[in-house]
Amino acid sequence: MEATVTDGGLELRALVSLAETIQATSSARGLTVATAESCTGGLVAHAITEVPGSSAHFRGGIVAYSNAVKEAGLHVPTELLRAHGAVSAQVARAMAEGARAASGSDFAVAVTGVAGPDGGTAAKPVGLTYIAVAGPAVAEVRRYTWAGDRRSNKLASARAALELLLDAIRRVGSP
Amino acid sequence: MEATVTDGGLELRALVSLAETIQATSSARGLTVATAESCTGGLVAHAITEVPGSSAHFRGGIVAYSNAVKEAGLHVPTELLRAHGAVSAQVARAMAEGARAASGSDFAVAVTGVAGPDGGTAAKPVGLTYIAVAGPAVAEVRRYTWAGDRRSNKLASARAALELLLDAIRRVGSP
Repeated sequence: MEATVTDGGLELRALVSLAETIQATSSARGLTVATAESCTGGLVAHAITEVPGSSAHFRGGIVAYSNAVKEAGLHVPTELLRAHGAVSAQVARAMAEGARAASGSDFAVAVTGVAGPDGGTAAKPVGLTYIAVAGPAVAEVRRYTWAGDRRSNKLASARAALELLLDAIRRVGSP
Repeated sequence: MEATVTDGGLELRALVSLAETIQATSSARGLTVATAESCTGGLVAHAITEVPGSSAHFRGGIVAYSNAVKEAGLHVPTELLRAHGAVSAQVARAMAEGARAASGSDFAVAVTGVAGPDGGTAAKPVGLTYIAVAGPAVAEVRRYTWAGDRRSNKLASARAALELLLDAIRRVGSP
C-alpha cells in the first residue's frame, strides 16, 4: 500500500541503517550485544532485530519500565534508584552493566529518560535522557535533553543509543 | 518532513491503536501487563510505550533472542527448549508465564517464531509463530504461519500478540 505519511517509516529506516553497521562491526569482531531500555520502550531492540541475521550478535534486551523490573531484571540497586532517581547517570550505567551481566554479552547499551508528555519536573524535565554503554573495558554515560514530543524523543534516544553502542564496538581492535 | 513511503508509519499506527485500547481497558480494570518477545524483537513493547501514560499499566518486557536469555530472564526450563525447540507452543506458554512472574504483572503476552529470512526448516518454516498469553486464571496459545518477509512477519506477530492480550484482559470482569 502506498500512502503519504509524515512520520514512522523513514526514521525507523535511519535506526535500522545504524543497526546494520553495528551488526557488521560486531560480527567482524566476534562480539555480542544486549539492550536495557526504559523510555525507548523496546525501540532500540526492535531496530536491531529488523536486520536479518541479528540473532548472531544480539542476545536480547530488557524493557525496564517499572523500577521493580530495573531491580529484579537488571539488578539495579534499590539505594541507587532512591538516591539518584530512575532518570540519572548512575542508574543508566547500572542498567547497562546489569544487562551485560544478565545476557552474558560483550556490550550492553542502556537508555533511561523522561519521554513525556507527563513525568517531567523542574530538575528532570521532559526530554532529559541518559544513555550508557558497558563493555569489557569501557563504561560511558551521555546526557541529552530532547525538545520534541514523546514519539520524537523516543526516536532521538534510540538513535543516540545505537550511535554510542557503535562507537564503543568500533574502539575494540579488529581481531 | 512529508514523504511517500510504502511501509513503516501506517502499520505501527495500527499497533499503537490496539495498544491504546489495551491501556484504556487495563487501566479501567486496574490491571498491569508485561511482554516476552523473541521474533518481534521489542516491537510489541515499542507499540505499547508509544501511548502516553503507558507506565501506569506496562511494567516491562524481555526481548529473549538467545536461549540463554529465555532461560535466565524468563526461567524457561532447559529441558523444554531441548524437547520442543524455542519455536513451540510449550516455550511460548513458558515465556508468558515467566514474564508474568518476573515482572509481577497480572498479564503477560509472549511471542516466539521464525521471522526469517534464515532459520526455517521443513518442520518449522519461516513465518511459523506461537503467541501465548498468561493471566491470573487463563493461559492460551495460538499458532500462526505468516507468508511475508521478516519485517511483515514481525508486524503481523506483534498485531496478533496485542489482539490476544486485549482479548484476555477484556475477559476479566470490570471492577
